[in-house]
Amino acid sequence: MSDGETAGDILEAGAEGAVLASPAPLRLESGAVIDGLEIAYCTYGRLNAERSNAVLVCHPLTLDQHASGRHPKTGKAGWWSQVAGPGRPLDTDRYFVICANVLSGCGGTTGPGSIDPATGEPYGMKFPVVTVADMVRAQALLLDALGIERLFAVVGGSMGGMQVLQWAADYPERMFSAVCIGAAPRHSAQNIAFHEVGRQAIMADPYWRGGDYARQGVRPEKGLAVARMAAHITYLSEAALQRKFGRELQRDGLSWGFDADFQVESYLRHQGAAFVDRFDANSYLYITRALDYFDLAAAHGGSLAEAFRRARDVRFGVFSFSSDWLYPTPESRQIVRALNAAGARASFVEIETDKGHDAFFLDEPVLHAALAGFLASAAQARGLA
Amino acid sequence: MSDGETAGDILEAGAEGAVLASPAPLRLESGAVIDGLEIAYCTYGRLNAERSNAVLVCHPLTLDQHASGRHPKTGKAGWWSQVAGPGRPLDTDRYFVICANVLSGCGGTTGPGSIDPATGEPYGMKFPVVTVADMVRAQALLLDALGIERLFAVVGGSMGGMQVLQWAADYPERMFSAVCIGAAPRHSAQNIAFHEVGRQAIMADPYWRGGDYARQGVRPEKGLAVARMAAHITYLSEAALQRKFGRELQRDGLSWGFDADFQVESYLRHQGAAFVDRFDANSYLYITRALDYFDLAAAHGGSLAEAFRRARDVRFGVFSFSSDWLYPTPESRQIVRALNAAGARASFVEIETDKGHDAFFLDEPVLHAALAGFLASAAQARGLA
Repeated sequence: MSDGETAGDILEAGAEGAVLASPAPLRLESGAVIDGLEIAYCTYGRLNAERSNAVLVCHPLTLDQHASGRHPKTGKAGWWSQVAGPGRPLDTDRYFVICANVLSGCGGTTGPGSIDPATGEPYGMKFPVVTVADMVRAQALLLDALGIERLFAVVGGSMGGMQVLQWAADYPERMFSAVCIGAAPRHSAQNIAFHEVGRQAIMADPYWRGGDYARQGVRPEKGLAVARMAAHITYLSEAALQRKFGRELQRDGLSWGFDADFQVESYLRHQGAAFVDRFDANSYLYITRALDYFDLAAAHGGSLAEAFRRARDVRFGVFSFSSDWLYPTPESRQIVRALNAAGARASFVEIETDKGHDAFFLDEPVLHAALAGFLASAAQARGLA
Repeated sequence: MSDGETAGDILEAGAEGAVLASPAPLRLESGAVIDGLEIAYCTYGRLNAERSNAVLVCHPLTLDQHASGRHPKTGKAGWWSQVAGPGRPLDTDRYFVICANVLSGCGGTTGPGSIDPATGEPYGMKFPVVTVADMVRAQALLLDALGIERLFAVVGGSMGGMQVLQWAADYPERMFSAVCIGAAPRHSAQNIAFHEVGRQAIMADPYWRGGDYARQGVRPEKGLAVARMAAHITYLSEAALQRKFGRELQRDGLSWGFDADFQVESYLRHQGAAFVDRFDANSYLYITRALDYFDLAAAHGGSLAEAFRRARDVRFGVFSFSSDWLYPTPESRQIVRALNAAGARASFVEIETDKGHDAFFLDEPVLHAALAGFLASAAQARGLA
């Protein structure tokens, strides 16, 4: 927590921009240990007297703990403001919403850009490889520090959805319900392939300097921008790209050169350029690696149902998008089948949209309605007023 | 043609590795003019006395004129040896098969790596932007030089299929039949987006040197490899990647690092590394640009049927692959509908396969059988024995 702030203050008033300095080292799945772990997080709303209304929001790859409110750096609304806020499906007048920057991220939680206490310099590639399970373990430490034993819900889309599944596997007793949106139980060969392109683009940048760029005062901006451009295509559907841009030109007529002739080129370049302003290249390497390593069934003897065996009392909402080709609907169906096989209660909705994977944080009223409905029903079952 | 070879020799015996030095300058769609145009090409089989058995094969983006026989540099079989050769669907005992390296390519035809006669140095980015129509115009010049007035067929897959469509729009009187495989009548926003990622990866490489790398004795190998890796994913289906690689590891256990842990990573890295050995970065820029500019309907007042209006006597075979997400089946159906609207005869087959876009030059027996059947029927109609 920030200086002068206590857990009590945060639970009372909410905290945007708090940092927990964990007293205990974090032992990772790899066997490595992180000393001096810090977890940056935000909270929105108030914890009730029974401590039963806390919701953990797990953020996707390139976002951070500022799910609601205003981002202190960009001044923009939090990335999930349409979902989490007063009167929203994740109603902060009703729920105490917590969102923490993931382990190995660049939003304040310990990651490759942090100072290695052993050397006094940024970790760079000396940072240990982490997994989704490690990210979740760090979140559980934060909840311990906040004195929250059991969450009303763990909610997330994309990589956030994978964290939700990992929560259900590792800490089912600490959650009443779970919402997994546009995710998958493991990274496919194509998912790994796209991430590898991004990593190679970063590592090909001479300013990457073997990951030591921070110490050398440079940044692999071009490589990171290319990585973002490639990934960004996978977040949108072909139909959405066609609808938004088609073959529309930037100006009248072709340039007969290599400027951005087409609006879609200009859009992608902008996506790349904006990303390097807000994200760290090494964090991108580590988080994509964690996702590629994610395979919940493999970690449970090859059975996804076995991963959820202890989660049979958790109420699950699983949502997918018809045009999501990054984590397509069959991946969500596989999750639902495994939950059913484990004896867990699962609601599943495939939302018809052409917005592709990114639909989970865009203006998608059907998702918002489905989410509100699921949470209302779960809240009733939990006895939340 | 090579020194000492005459058109007569080539028509008689075939020529692998011939170069036509065009006597006339080539005026491009942009208005620019290329002096000293050279067209590198191969022929297989013999032209018959009636000069009626010539087939032009149009190659895809990253391949070259060595469609059959052996590639002189790699020693490997030509890229379409399964389709073009003695006893193959494109039977070189029967047809005189011609394949020319495209304009702006790097297989010997004039491109950005060629010497600019105006300066005596490689063109680099001074090379004019070319279009698919320009590529086709250069091929028509080659046919003029070979004394072939009318082709029995123009055949191609992917970018080759786009050239086939351009042939039908521009020179319908010079072709009896046309085979368009796994192509599209225009580049979609997603197609352009993936190409732009590749171009940005190349241009981000400090060894690109504004396109002047050849003169400076360096090569943007890392950028070109990343471009290839990103593109290569689009050539394969998710199902094929899953079948071939899944989440299989390179060794026992994870490395907990950034080596190629997964086989799919190793495969992609290999694809990138092998590509830079055989392809030129600036050619990649120019050819992808030509494809992005390709929009056959737009060039004909917005009507694809209008583009094919003069081609109503050409017999078309259109083939697509069920798992091709680069140029999916609906794009081929659109071509067929436009051909029908123009009054042309079109056979259409969607081939069920999980091999994705690359199926057109892989071992795909259904395609080979369909192609053989189409050509046999056309040959009969043409009166070829």
